[in-house]
Amino acid sequence: MITPKRPSGFNELLPADQLAFNAMVAIIKMSYEQYGYAPLETPALELAPVLLAKEGGETSKQVYRFSKGDTDLALRFDLTIPLARYAAEHFNELAFPFRRYQIQEVWRAEKAQAGRYRQFYQCDIDILGSKSSMADVDIILAARAALLALGLKGVTFSLSHRGILSGWLASRKLENKITPVLRAIDKLRKFGEKTVADELKASGLKQEEIKDIIKFVNLKGSPRDVIKAMRLLDIKDDRFIKALDELEKISELFKASGVKSNEYVFDLRISRGLDYYTGMVFETYLASDTKIGSICSGGRYDNLLGQYRRDPIPGVGASIGLSRLFSAIKDDLKNGPSNPAQVLIVALGEDVADYSLEVANSLRKHNLNILVYPGFEKIGKALGYADKLGIPLAILCGGNEADKNVVTIKNLKSGKQTTIALAKAAAAIRKLL
Amino acid sequence: MITPKRPSGFNELLPADQLAFNAMVAIIKMSYEQYGYAPLETPALELAPVLLAKEGGETSKQVYRFSKGDTDLALRFDLTIPLARYAAEHFNELAFPFRRYQIQEVWRAEKAQAGRYRQFYQCDIDILGSKSSMADVDIILAARAALLALGLKGVTFSLSHRGILSGWLASRKLENKITPVLRAIDKLRKFGEKTVADELKASGLKQEEIKDIIKFVNLKGSPRDVIKAMRLLDIKDDRFIKALDELEKISELFKASGVKSNEYVFDLRISRGLDYYTGMVFETYLASDTKIGSICSGGRYDNLLGQYRRDPIPGVGASIGLSRLFSAIKDDLKNGPSNPAQVLIVALGEDVADYSLEVANSLRKHNLNILVYPGFEKIGKALGYADKLGIPLAILCGGNEADKNVVTIKNLKSGKQTTIALAKAAAAIRKLL
Repeated sequence: MITPKRPSGFNELLPADQLAFNAMVAIIKMSYEQYGYAPLETPALELAPVLLAKEGGETSKQVYRFSKGDTDLALRFDLTIPLARYAAEHFNELAFPFRRYQIQEVWRAEKAQAGRYRQFYQCDIDILGSKSSMADVDIILAARAALLALGLKGVTFSLSHRGILSGWLASRKLENKITPVLRAIDKLRKFGEKTVADELKASGLKQEEIKDIIKFVNLKGSPRDVIKAMRLLDIKDDRFIKALDELEKISELFKASGVKSNEYVFDLRISRGLDYYTGMVFETYLASDTKIGSICSGGRYDNLLGQYRRDPIPGVGASIGLSRLFSAIKDDLKNGPSNPAQVLIVALGEDVADYSLEVANSLRKHNLNILVYPGFEKIGKALGYADKLGIPLAILCGGNEADKNVVTIKNLKSGKQTTIALAKAAAAIRKLL
Repeated sequence: MITPKRPSGFNELLPADQLAFNAMVAIIKMSYEQYGYAPLETPALELAPVLLAKEGGETSKQVYRFSKGDTDLALRFDLTIPLARYAAEHFNELAFPFRRYQIQEVWRAEKAQAGRYRQFYQCDIDILGSKSSMADVDIILAARAALLALGLKGVTFSLSHRGILSGWLASRKLENKITPVLRAIDKLRKFGEKTVADELKASGLKQEEIKDIIKFVNLKGSPRDVIKAMRLLDIKDDRFIKALDELEKISELFKASGVKSNEYVFDLRISRGLDYYTGMVFETYLASDTKIGSICSGGRYDNLLGQYRRDPIPGVGASIGLSRLFSAIKDDLKNGPSNPAQVLIVALGEDVADYSLEVANSLRKHNLNILVYPGFEKIGKALGYADKLGIPLAILCGGNEADKNVVTIKNLKSGKQTTIALAKAAAAIRKLL
């Protein structure tokens, strides 16, 4: 006999949680479709040399990579690179701008810790083939719609633009430090100034420069104030000016879309760790829980497809980290049912099994979810089962009911029961639900 | 630059097909929930020694198995063994009879061939913890409901029972040949008598015995006729008698559930290749397409959990092979849209971008799926895009519309367009859809 257990770091849900999780997936799916994103799924396994074309460093170490026969395979570790591969592979079969959502698992061999899993769901949306700020705004609006539809309170988008810090560094003759600075600054919110200062020092920056950089990125506030302060710096770098123009445009379009001014800030500490971002970047925080970090992140990446195509295609996207979000909020969810059935049907003996199935058949035609208890237990045991599953109503079928073509409906919350003609049962049940 | 391609044998869909596929998943999910099965997902990766506890032979070779650090991992190759592991691991947290559905991918390194993929979806339902024929019937009814809801025509369930052939062989002093005979007979429908006869010969059976076995299993027909013919054989083996009783019971309960007599047959050639089945087994065929084989198979397995628990739990289940079914019927599907949007909004210039977003925001409040074209192209290009995606309506927003707070709705099929107040647009759109 073998002990039944999962690999460490791999989560799975009990039925009540799975139902709640699936309800969240359905809401996100609906929101994304409301914004005109089409569903997409890609295979879990990719060719490792294709998937890891641009990867180096930490992500590579976390990838589940192995050979089967002569094939070097890897499980996807995000949904963005597979999208780039998909769009490049099917380029001639797709209409651009190509808009897709993808709600699938990704795998990373991370250190196991609370709320961090080695398999987790991401819910991504991306637009490929548009450089317009309209696309940037569309992505954030669709993600916002999903988060609001989930009932989350105090959702705030923190936006920045890679061009601001890059242009500012260039204006200070630190152009060659852009990549290490962006990577280091990404850790500011999570690990604090000390960590970032150490990392910047290690990359060869002077004490004074480090102080200035940290001071610069700590500037944040209302979009209007940040833009104003930046304009006052009067920096002549093209990237810097373009970045400000784009953020200003995004702010205008947010307003037209009904996004309130307390729903977003410009925060120059947001730089995103991934090298492929080229423009607007953002993270999303819940007012109530800062320890889970960003629940939805993304940005513009205009060169990503260049690894697969001679002509790169501009892109912008967002990703909701659903597994982590779920584990953070699941304690707040009410204890829901662990079965989708609305009614449990119990046959009170083997001789009425056929009648209980007739009743089930009749009620399912009215789009009710009906669970027929598979066996002939004592009533108490069957009702206890309904109670454990959170099924609100039971129908008892005995010989008496079968003879008269009636059913006895028991409300498991109130304990009340009534006997009613089968033909009228569906309507009566609807009233009780 | 790296050529973007997938590993061989791994399928992925273009957006129109993905939408059609997802619609099928939604229908199956709804049907399973109507029968009181709760959703479940298990991790893609399992500990190989746990997953492969009972496996030997062909399946093992097809498993994607590899090590990460010290951990010996394997991608699941079906949804039944992970269910057994899950139920044993969470035994004390679950209510029994435990009923779950699971719609997830499985991975098998099969030889690549048409309609056979190395990653494919299975849609499983199982009941653990009931020995009753009520459970057997429930499983087939729920699978049938899903297949009918998918609009499939001429669905026929072919049922048998492992006890019949086993009991008959025992009565002929061939008890020690039960396993090889069941495995060989499983190939009869697909590969024909010659193949099966050769395999039976290789397992040590005599020419005369082989002839008898093939003659015996070729007996099929209406449930009533098969049962009658079997009873007439007057075989005293307990397994044989119990199997006939159970099939007779199933037949009765089918009748009570509204299953018509042309929807199922008893067919002794059905034996299922997997060793874990112990009772009723079935396969499902479409009248129109025999070459895809069984689209839904399953049966009773009363000892499967014994590998993980001292007290085994009886089980019964079914699995719809959705990927294969989809690839078989997708040519019959009408060419559907490749985007869920109902309306494409086009801003006729950057100065009306904000108005176009106001319009989108207003219409989405009426639960319409709205795609805002992300950019400012010539009208023709934007309308061509709507056409490619199969979006039926476009809204054109120019300066004129913005000034008067109206929208121009264009029906892309008829070419007709009308200008209407924004407040009345949602109702007008609903009429046109």
